[in-house]
Amino acid sequence: MKRIYMDHAATTRTDKEVVEAMLPCFTEIFGNASSLHAFGRAAKEVLEKSRETIAKSIGARAEEIIFTSGGTESDNMAIKEIAFSNRDKGNHIITSSIEHHAVLHTCEFLEKMGFKVTYLPVDKDGLVNPNDVKKAITNKTILVSIMHANNEIGTIEPIKEIGKICKKHQVYFHTDAVQTFGKIPINVNKMKIDLLSASAHKLYGPKGVGFLFVRKGTHIGSLMHGGGHEYGLRSGTENIPGIAGFAKATQIAVKNMKQEIKKETRLRDNLINNLLKIKGSRLNGHPSLRLPGNANFSFSGIEGESLVIHLDMQGIAASTGSACSTKSLKPSHVLTAIGLKPEMAHGSLRLTIGKENTEKDIEYALRVIPEIVENLRKISPFK
Amino acid sequence: MKRIYMDHAATTRTDKEVVEAMLPCFTEIFGNASSLHAFGRAAKEVLEKSRETIAKSIGARAEEIIFTSGGTESDNMAIKEIAFSNRDKGNHIITSSIEHHAVLHTCEFLEKMGFKVTYLPVDKDGLVNPNDVKKAITNKTILVSIMHANNEIGTIEPIKEIGKICKKHQVYFHTDAVQTFGKIPINVNKMKIDLLSASAHKLYGPKGVGFLFVRKGTHIGSLMHGGGHEYGLRSGTENIPGIAGFAKATQIAVKNMKQEIKKETRLRDNLINNLLKIKGSRLNGHPSLRLPGNANFSFSGIEGESLVIHLDMQGIAASTGSACSTKSLKPSHVLTAIGLKPEMAHGSLRLTIGKENTEKDIEYALRVIPEIVENLRKISPFK
Repeated sequence: MKRIYMDHAATTRTDKEVVEAMLPCFTEIFGNASSLHAFGRAAKEVLEKSRETIAKSIGARAEEIIFTSGGTESDNMAIKEIAFSNRDKGNHIITSSIEHHAVLHTCEFLEKMGFKVTYLPVDKDGLVNPNDVKKAITNKTILVSIMHANNEIGTIEPIKEIGKICKKHQVYFHTDAVQTFGKIPINVNKMKIDLLSASAHKLYGPKGVGFLFVRKGTHIGSLMHGGGHEYGLRSGTENIPGIAGFAKATQIAVKNMKQEIKKETRLRDNLINNLLKIKGSRLNGHPSLRLPGNANFSFSGIEGESLVIHLDMQGIAASTGSACSTKSLKPSHVLTAIGLKPEMAHGSLRLTIGKENTEKDIEYALRVIPEIVENLRKISPFK
Repeated sequence: MKRIYMDHAATTRTDKEVVEAMLPCFTEIFGNASSLHAFGRAAKEVLEKSRETIAKSIGARAEEIIFTSGGTESDNMAIKEIAFSNRDKGNHIITSSIEHHAVLHTCEFLEKMGFKVTYLPVDKDGLVNPNDVKKAITNKTILVSIMHANNEIGTIEPIKEIGKICKKHQVYFHTDAVQTFGKIPINVNKMKIDLLSASAHKLYGPKGVGFLFVRKGTHIGSLMHGGGHEYGLRSGTENIPGIAGFAKATQIAVKNMKQEIKKETRLRDNLINNLLKIKGSRLNGHPSLRLPGNANFSFSGIEGESLVIHLDMQGIAASTGSACSTKSLKPSHVLTAIGLKPEMAHGSLRLTIGKENTEKDIEYALRVIPEIVENLRKISPFK
């Protein structure tokens, strides 16, 4: 059976070119980048070139890129370490109710440590209102953390407007760009971003590597204490193969971004327009301000999990929402936040299109999904 | 010029077999291990098999292995999260003065957060006295963290005795085994270890992956909040290629351990016996209770850094001490702790032998090092 992967928001297949860029760093340029000798210097060179490539792609300076183990670490570091390092200025953090759990659970941890967190609501399409951010800022606010685009419903937030507000009020602005880095344009200066999280494995790079952009002059401490790597901000021997792979993935993503946005948008809209013909279906997330590859639906009377399992049996890999929440029986906090009733929130299907997907994949999905929905409804206890 | 790598304590060349084990996880078994579909299940299978392999190698249960991004993260997680989670029982931590910076700087961070830390001294060979541990324990003590073997001078600590004492006093016992995992035998039950840190890249595995052994029933929180991966203890998409590589490296290390210990010990002793013939030289670390591959010397009247640079010019990769401290101008805290005066501590050379090294490498080193020492002494300002 041919298998079609339509879960690119969960993770992606590592590009062959990326693997090729990593390979020499395992067996040849294998030194510790902190070592003085030739093996160490060669590793250091790869590290710094990679840093430059990535920095350039978002308009940052090389020394503003701190390599981490991935998006979760970047989010944890940004939020906790801004909080701990700026407690003398205030103890208030603003975020949204639809952030990734790496942000939300970090905020909940900080609440236990005595911080106050405002969880802003979103509208029916998942948009944060910049005016709500403005109104929530007090003289105790030290950080605003709003994601660039939502991982479940794909809604792209008004980051630039929020950035301006934060800048004006001199509050640090962090954005979780795990779903957008390498997918849609980002410029940390135009968007007035102080901290930005990204992960390599969402853009055809390797798992286990990410970065946190930290604007020069930002007052922040370390999540990882130790040898003082990464300008003293993130200790731990640098993952040179991972970082080299991340840089290559970034290069490829930047080069192909325009055409990829065009292609994925076309495939996505084909999916959306046709699946919305199914009775009792709805599109979750904003109709136009959404990630090119993201389509998220609810089908009344159906469990999303059953849908995913039946799709898998037909060779289509999809998800109900975030891969991280697979084991949770609770309806998605994102779908709840945009106002879905539990029965619709439970019946969600996320299809996320990537560069491997073709028109034929979409045609196949459009043939299979309506059948499965119909069959599942026949046996549904919710009827 | 042939280059000889004798800095295996800093990092190692990834084994070809390890790279081969990783490759399918980049481009075929590339799913997110939390995904329900076939791609996710295949990744999950690799994850759990790898966990079993690694657990078995130290006598642990699979569910006691928490994958992390490396030794630094494991140390940070063990110490901070035991501290934060057991604060109601006490605020006292015991460690040694020769720990890796990932332990020492984490302890210093905790001191700022209101914890009390006892830094035990070591003897002239770098040994912690188990009696000192016993005497330092108070009713406020929640954690003892003593490394299995020192990364600079190779001294192997009396972990089993310390483990027994901790067990008796019901204090959690953590050991940083980054230098010993896969190198010398470890059994977490016989050694009464509650938490153990390890890293793949020290044993011919990839950089960017490690684990923390957490004994079942240990009261510990998370350093990384988010999607609740790794039994809810370490969030972040699992680095499947890295983890698969780590498991393969463990398998190979376990299989070859006996013969590798024998070979490295022989090469090491050859190095030690001959380099100690140089006037004004001394061996740092214990003469017999030391890592098979570790040789650490001081040469009076010489800067270790110059020695390393000249060795590099002759094709030998070595270090003065920990790679992590390359940029520091201070003498090594380890050498200071074993009583070396600054001038001897500055003149240290660490040669760490690995499985690639041969008799011929040692012969070459024994020809080159005495010459360099002699030449450097001729131009030394310390004469």
